[in-house]
Amino acid sequence: MIEGRPVRVCVDVAGGDHAPTEILAGVMSASSAEQELDIILTGPEDIVVPFAAERERVTAHPTTEVILMDEHPASAVRSKKDSSIVVGCRLVREGAADAFFSAGSTGACMAAGTLMMGRIAGVARPAIATVIPTTASPTVLLDVGANADCKPEHLLAFAHMGRAYAETVLEITGPTVGLLNIGEEPTKGSTLAIEAHALMTTGVSRFCGNIEGRDILTGAVDVIVTDGFTGNVALKLLEGTSRTLLAQVKEAMTSSPLNRMAAAVLAPSLKALKKRLDPDTYGGAPLLGVNGVCIIGHGSSNASAVAAGIGVAARAARADLPSRIAAAVDPATS
Amino acid sequence: MIEGRPVRVCVDVAGGDHAPTEILAGVMSASSAEQELDIILTGPEDIVVPFAAERERVTAHPTTEVILMDEHPASAVRSKKDSSIVVGCRLVREGAADAFFSAGSTGACMAAGTLMMGRIAGVARPAIATVIPTTASPTVLLDVGANADCKPEHLLAFAHMGRAYAETVLEITGPTVGLLNIGEEPTKGSTLAIEAHALMTTGVSRFCGNIEGRDILTGAVDVIVTDGFTGNVALKLLEGTSRTLLAQVKEAMTSSPLNRMAAAVLAPSLKALKKRLDPDTYGGAPLLGVNGVCIIGHGSSNASAVAAGIGVAARAARADLPSRIAAAVDPATS
Repeated sequence: MIEGRPVRVCVDVAGGDHAPTEILAGVMSASSAEQELDIILTGPEDIVVPFAAERERVTAHPTTEVILMDEHPASAVRSKKDSSIVVGCRLVREGAADAFFSAGSTGACMAAGTLMMGRIAGVARPAIATVIPTTASPTVLLDVGANADCKPEHLLAFAHMGRAYAETVLEITGPTVGLLNIGEEPTKGSTLAIEAHALMTTGVSRFCGNIEGRDILTGAVDVIVTDGFTGNVALKLLEGTSRTLLAQVKEAMTSSPLNRMAAAVLAPSLKALKKRLDPDTYGGAPLLGVNGVCIIGHGSSNASAVAAGIGVAARAARADLPSRIAAAVDPATS
Repeated sequence: MIEGRPVRVCVDVAGGDHAPTEILAGVMSASSAEQELDIILTGPEDIVVPFAAERERVTAHPTTEVILMDEHPASAVRSKKDSSIVVGCRLVREGAADAFFSAGSTGACMAAGTLMMGRIAGVARPAIATVIPTTASPTVLLDVGANADCKPEHLLAFAHMGRAYAETVLEITGPTVGLLNIGEEPTKGSTLAIEAHALMTTGVSRFCGNIEGRDILTGAVDVIVTDGFTGNVALKLLEGTSRTLLAQVKEAMTSSPLNRMAAAVLAPSLKALKKRLDPDTYGGAPLLGVNGVCIIGHGSSNASAVAAGIGVAARAARADLPSRIAAAVDPATS
């Protein structure tokens, strides 16, 4: 797909809690880290045009509308055709960009990505994946919210898509797959999980069977498959627990002057730990199953999260993630 | 129900990873903490008889069978009529005991409790609840595994049962209820969650609407309702995350001689935090919706967890939890 030319990542400067400042700072950081990277900015003209004018390898594509976080995603995408998100996804479909990154409304990115880029043949339901930093190597968890109600065959496709992502973007050879369930035996769990287990046993390479909630952080498998309801609850619980626990550790460590002195000694080590556990390290959540690369950043993304997300978008485009997913979902197409 | 006499808690000495040693140590601890408590022990004769002979207010009820952790719960309960779990539940039904505690197979306790004690009128599906230590007051989460597939009306009943438990055992006045979901708006989530939200809006006192995974640990509500699949994944993820994070904090704190000195200063504060976050503080998971008190301890329960579980069983029996649940589920019966 991309040979002998820079990869072109379109970035939405209007999306996210810290837009446009942190988005633009992230663009600068990503741009200086990689020579073979061209950036196309969608967003308000008064922001994108002056910024692009002063920089090489950054071009502006002004848009007149913005989709807000609290708008109904599907109707906003239908009505705001000139929004930074819809236009960004359209540029990818038209071949004017190789990938799209936004820290805006997840629902809008999902709707625009699906509508504009189209679904890959054999994918009934695109899914959102996230990369979880574990004690071992990172783990891909999907779906984390695109599909609240799922059928067993959707979970089977998620397994294929998750493996393709782990192989192309995380560069894991022969990734293993687990099904999130509430017991280890194949007969345990909900009807959905039991039926998905049966499909995955015959249909997925390196399927390791069921894994439980306690194994999500241990890196037991490279890809964890679940429905979008369970996955979203799990992801938010994980974020909430980490935040709460680290805050309580901090509180305990600063509860007396002596404790504070000891805490100062430990600060660098704990800071390194916090950084290692930071999901932003892996740069945003890919929308898998659409005919293009679409990476969705956390709403709270700062410059380094944005830069990481742009990096992931570039890597996924260079590795031609959509073709890899198409081949994984339907091996006959490869 | 219980007036002018000690409460009688039946304890299974054969269940749990550390049975019988830690179970018996827990019995001694619970027994010395409360005067108005009689203990009945079910389990192998050579263990329960000599132990009871040497102690006041402890009687032995020897049983000849044991249900193992890996047995199929329902069939084990049907075939092993003289097991410590089945007999314990039977003693409660017959009025020979006021409550039952076991750290054995959760599935077997659930099956035996339901089969022996029977369901409360209006409860289609008994549920397992757990009490989560939050940054504010403790929160009741249910169902955490009894029902992998749920209907909206089951979740409605869980809300009533969870409130009754919070009121009687945790002594929370007018407990608030939240529905675990993947968005705040009533229209968000799975079909199950959307329909349950509608039922709970009209049918549950102090219903606060949807809460998300990140709010589980913040004590946003007193009772969190979810299906047994999501609840079990959430509970195990919570346990796994706490364990992993605290282990990583410990590792970071002992990575150099200087760090280890600082860590020694902080050890008491961090130990207190760990104890505060320990779910064993709240002593086991009640099986709600059956006609009797049945408290299920974690398989890994040590003596203090067993003592806490026995304490909860005694409190629930004194407060006549089953009648309170019956009244909550069907106010006409009260």
